[in-house]
Formats: sequence, structure tokens, C-alpha cells
Amino acid sequence: MIKRMLCLFSVLVIATSAIVVQAAADPLPSWNDNAPKKAILTFVKKITTEDSPEFVRPSERIAVFDNDGTLWSEQPMYFQLAFALDQVKALAPKHPEWKEKQPFKAALEGDLKTVFSGGEHALLELVMASHAGNTTEEFERIVTDWTSTAKHPRFNRLFTDCVFQPMLELLSYLRANGFKTWIVSGGGIEFMRPWVEKIYGIPPEQVIGSSIKTKFEIRDGKPVLVRLPKIDFIDDKAEKPVGIHKFIGRRPIAAFGNSDGDLQMLQWTAAGKGARFCLYVHHTDAEREWAYDRKSPIGRLDEGLDEARAKSWTVVDMKQDWKRVFPFDR
Amino acid sequence: MIKRMLCLFSVLVIATSAIVVQAAADPLPSWNDNAPKKAILTFVKKITTEDSPEFVRPSERIAVFDNDGTLWSEQPMYFQLAFALDQVKALAPKHPEWKEKQPFKAALEGDLKTVFSGGEHALLELVMASHAGNTTEEFERIVTDWTSTAKHPRFNRLFTDCVFQPMLELLSYLRANGFKTWIVSGGGIEFMRPWVEKIYGIPPEQVIGSSIKTKFEIRDGKPVLVRLPKIDFIDDKAEKPVGIHKFIGRRPIAAFGNSDGDLQMLQWTAAGKGARFCLYVHHTDAEREWAYDRKSPIGRLDEGLDEARAKSWTVVDMKQDWKRVFPFDR
Repeated sequence: MIKRMLCLFSVLVIATSAIVVQAAADPLPSWNDNAPKKAILTFVKKITTEDSPEFVRPSERIAVFDNDGTLWSEQPMYFQLAFALDQVKALAPKHPEWKEKQPFKAALEGDLKTVFSGGEHALLELVMASHAGNTTEEFERIVTDWTSTAKHPRFNRLFTDCVFQPMLELLSYLRANGFKTWIVSGGGIEFMRPWVEKIYGIPPEQVIGSSIKTKFEIRDGKPVLVRLPKIDFIDDKAEKPVGIHKFIGRRPIAAFGNSDGDLQMLQWTAAGKGARFCLYVHHTDAEREWAYDRKSPIGRLDEGLDEARAKSWTVVDMKQDWKRVFPFDR
Repeated sequence: MIKRMLCLFSVLVIATSAIVVQAAADPLPSWNDNAPKKAILTFVKKITTEDSPEFVRPSERIAVFDNDGTLWSEQPMYFQLAFALDQVKALAPKHPEWKEKQPFKAALEGDLKTVFSGGEHALLELVMASHAGNTTEEFERIVTDWTSTAKHPRFNRLFTDCVFQPMLELLSYLRANGFKTWIVSGGGIEFMRPWVEKIYGIPPEQVIGSSIKTKFEIRDGKPVLVRLPKIDFIDDKAEKPVGIHKFIGRRPIAAFGNSDGDLQMLQWTAAGKGARFCLYVHHTDAEREWAYDRKSPIGRLDEGLDEARAKSWTVVDMKQDWKRVFPFDR
């Protein structure tokens, strides 16, 4: 027993030294020393200091992150739409009628203008055709195959490489300070779950997103969940606080977004008692990423920018505040 | 630095000793040394032994528990129904029309027979009247007030005292072995969340249950979520695997239930690859708790019992296998 305990001690010595060294290093090296970085560090310090009046016990340290435009890029189109278009192409041989039927015809011809001209209804048709009709296990395999092969058109990298290095550091930093980090995205919950643990360190059970209905069936004696072409939940705008309440059941103390679609999530977070932290990522860097806000059809940030200023929320100016955007940037 | 590290060491020595002592003690003292206890210990040992072919990495150690009849009693009626009846009484002064309108009239007169004769529709009306129309914060307060005052009619104890001591030990034991423990209940998600952390050590974000819809609104400049009288999700039978997939997004490796309403959850769990554990609590103890199974209107266990036997799932005979039922038993 003594020997086993001594052995445990050596492990602990090593572990402890590692922690001490890490604490001394900058936890957010890809952030310039501007106001947003300072605001993050100040907030985390005050809610983790035990004798601070603003101390928050670990179980209440819930941080929620939008995904598209907040943790990874969302240009030139939502990555999930690129996935849907690729899926429509892959499924086309089984659907000869798509050659003559919109929006499939346009999708197959790569004519995005016509696809978008069909509005939300056309996009919904594409998503349903590409996301439903299989089992949850089959869909997971399809997503995993796609994310490990498909490349972003501008960067020629896997889409899962086009994530923001400063946000990866922020996720780790919050977790090292006792936070549970959650994704609250308008994107499909099953489109994110297969890869978020590896890329963001966020387990699948901490992902909230849009979903279609599933149905339990026994097929050849084996239970399966079949994905149905019916909307279950659209996790956007005023539905984000609804999703947070449904899945988490407590109010976050920190929220991170980049568009008007995240505004209610930030409002809901800000309205809780005690210290709160709300942050918007403002896309201002056309050179390294993209620059867009009030008039963008994707990730519009208009009302949210006004409210952030009125309420003194933190706004990240990507160009000024981030030393590095992507992990592949040097 | 040296001093701080030494200080850390003393803390670690104490922590390590505690772990060593705990490991030697019986983690399931309220379980008799019968087959179910042995099956639990064997399963946990094999999936946590690193060089075992059945080793499961900690992030995949998901265990799901039904609540009514599995973690606490469900007789002489579901505890949430007792709550709904008390709420109807509390709200009656604002609803003079209820004096003449069923099922409210019967509920107010304590005439349960008439209430039940109205079937599911009558129960749904009572639940909606007692659970909707307020904000999520108001409802949480109401539940907290009720669970800290209302008493169980047979035991004259708080309802939250009528939980199964052996299952509390099982929850702790699984968590000590790296499991995330989840509730997957037909009961209302918001009826459970306010107290499960204190009673079961399960945080609100690990509760799946039935729910009504909520709506985000700004009231007097403050965001609220209003509870609407519309069903969102009924987490029972074939919907339990649906709820598990929606909220957790990975398949549990262990599932615990007590009724046919849990059967699909156990089937879904059992059908995964690798080591799996499924357990039914069989209520066989009329003296200390209740004895019921194939013909009970509440918590019927019929088809499930047959399947458990056919598939060699573990079945707990409450009378034989549990040394103690409730924490207040001596």
C-alpha cells in the first residue's frame, strides 16, 4: 500500500508542476493585449476568486457559444450548406427527377444564385433531402466522412481547420477555470456532434442546435432511430434562450456570439443576477478572414452591435484584437 | 513556490488517503450480496480496467436512470400528480369556474376516482392548468416551495425523502468510476430540475424529461421565458431513446428502469457495441414500499419483465436484494 501511495505521489508531483507552469503562461496567446482580452481575464478572475462578492460556484459556470461565425467561419456560405450541396450531389443518382426539379437542379449545377432565390423554402428542401431518411448512425458516418475530406473553397483546408484559434484558447481557458462550455448554434445538432469533441473539446452532450424529428424503430431485431423530414427545433434568435433552458436548465453566466441571431441569447445571459459576460465577435478582417456586419445576408450583426454598445458588452474587432485567426496562420 | 507546492502536497496526501480508504469500503452497503450487486460490481470493474477488452473510456461512460419507481417511489400516485393536485387547490380561488368543471371539481374535492375516470385527457388538463401560465423562474420557485413542504401520505416525509437509498449509493458509485449519470424520466423536466442536484447529485443539465413549450418575451425590459399550455415532448416509451439521442447524442452503456415505459431505453442501450448493463427494479416489497408489476396501472412491468428474463438483464427483487429501501429506514 505504501509503495502504491508513493507511486501516486510521483504522478501528482509531475501533475502539480505542470499546473504551476501553465498558470504562469499567457492563457490567451493569440489575443492582443487589448480591451477584450483584459475584460475576459478580469471577469474570470472575479468569478473564481473565493472571497470576491462576485464569486460563482463551479457548477454555475456555464458558458454558451454560437458556432457559425463565432467558433468557425461562416463564409462564403454556412459550412453546413456546403455539406448539404455535396450530399445532394452524392444522392442525385438515386433521384433522376432532381435534374428537372428546383432547387435540386440549381444545386446540382452549382448555381447558388438560383438556389438562394428560392428563399428559405428552397434551402429547407435541400436540407431535408440531404439530412433525413437515414438512421442516426448512418448520418453520423456521412458527416464524419465529409468533415474529414471536404475542403473550404478559399483556404483549401478541411472545414474543421477553419476554426478560430483565439476562441479555441478561450474555450480551454474557461474550462481550466471550472466552466462547462456549450455550443448553442442555429446549425444542425447532428451535423456538429460527430466532430466538436475533437476540435473544440466540447462533448456531444454539450451541443444545442437545430434538429429534425427522429423515430424509434426495430429493424431486423435491432433498434434504430430514423431521421424524419420534419423540423423539430430551430435554434435561432428567440429560440436560443428556449433551447438553453430546455437543454441546460440554468442560465449561463457568459455568452459569445457574432450575429443578430445571438442577440436574445446574450440578453438572456446578461439578465441573470450577479456577474455576467457577453461578447460579440465582429468580423472586420477581410484580409485574414472576412469583413461584414450590418448588411450581410449571412451572420448579419446590426441590432446586436447597437445593443452591445449601449450595454457595454465586449466587442472583438477581429483585425485589431486577434494576433492569429486560424490555427494554420503563421 | 516550493512552499506552495509543499502545501499542495499535504492536501493531496489527505485526498489520496481518503481515496484509498474509500476503495476498501463497500460502495453499495444497502445492497445484499446477491446477484444484482455482483453484476453491477463486475460490470463496472470490467469497463474501467484499462487492459480489459471491454474497457470504456470515461467520456463514453453514460448511465441513464428512469426516475419514478426507479430512483424514488411512484405510489400511491406519481408524486408529480400530487404536486399538480396541490397546485390546482392553490390556484382555485382565481378560478371560481373550477367548482363546477371537471376534472377540476373532482380534484378540488379530492375525488381521485373521478379524476382518473377522465383518462389521459383529464390528467393533461390538470397538468396544463397547474404547470403553465407562469415564467420559468416562477415555476421553479413553486416547485421548490412544494418539495420543501409537501409530505408523502404514507410515510409523512418530504417526497424528496422517499428516494431509494440503494440507488443513491449506485449513483455515487458510478460517478466515482467516471460515469456521467443522467435522468431520463416521463416526469416533467422542470419539476425535477430544482431538486435533483441536492438529492441525487445530478446537475439540472443531466435531466431529460417531458416538457411544455416556452416562449421568450421581454417584460418590463427584462427577458423572461413564459411557460405555454402546449406539449413539447413526452419522454416515455419509444420517445425515451429519442430524448436520449436529442439531449446526450451518444448511446448510454448502462440503463436503469422499473416499468414497461423504460423498455425501449433499455433496448436502445443494450443494442450498442461493447459491454452494456441493463437493470430493472422490480417492486416486490409491500411491507417497506409496494409490490406491483404486470397489472399495475402505475409503473406496469409486464413486457419488460419478460424481455429482461429472455435477455438476462439484471432484475432487482426489492425485498430480497435491498437491505434498506429509504434513507429514513433503520
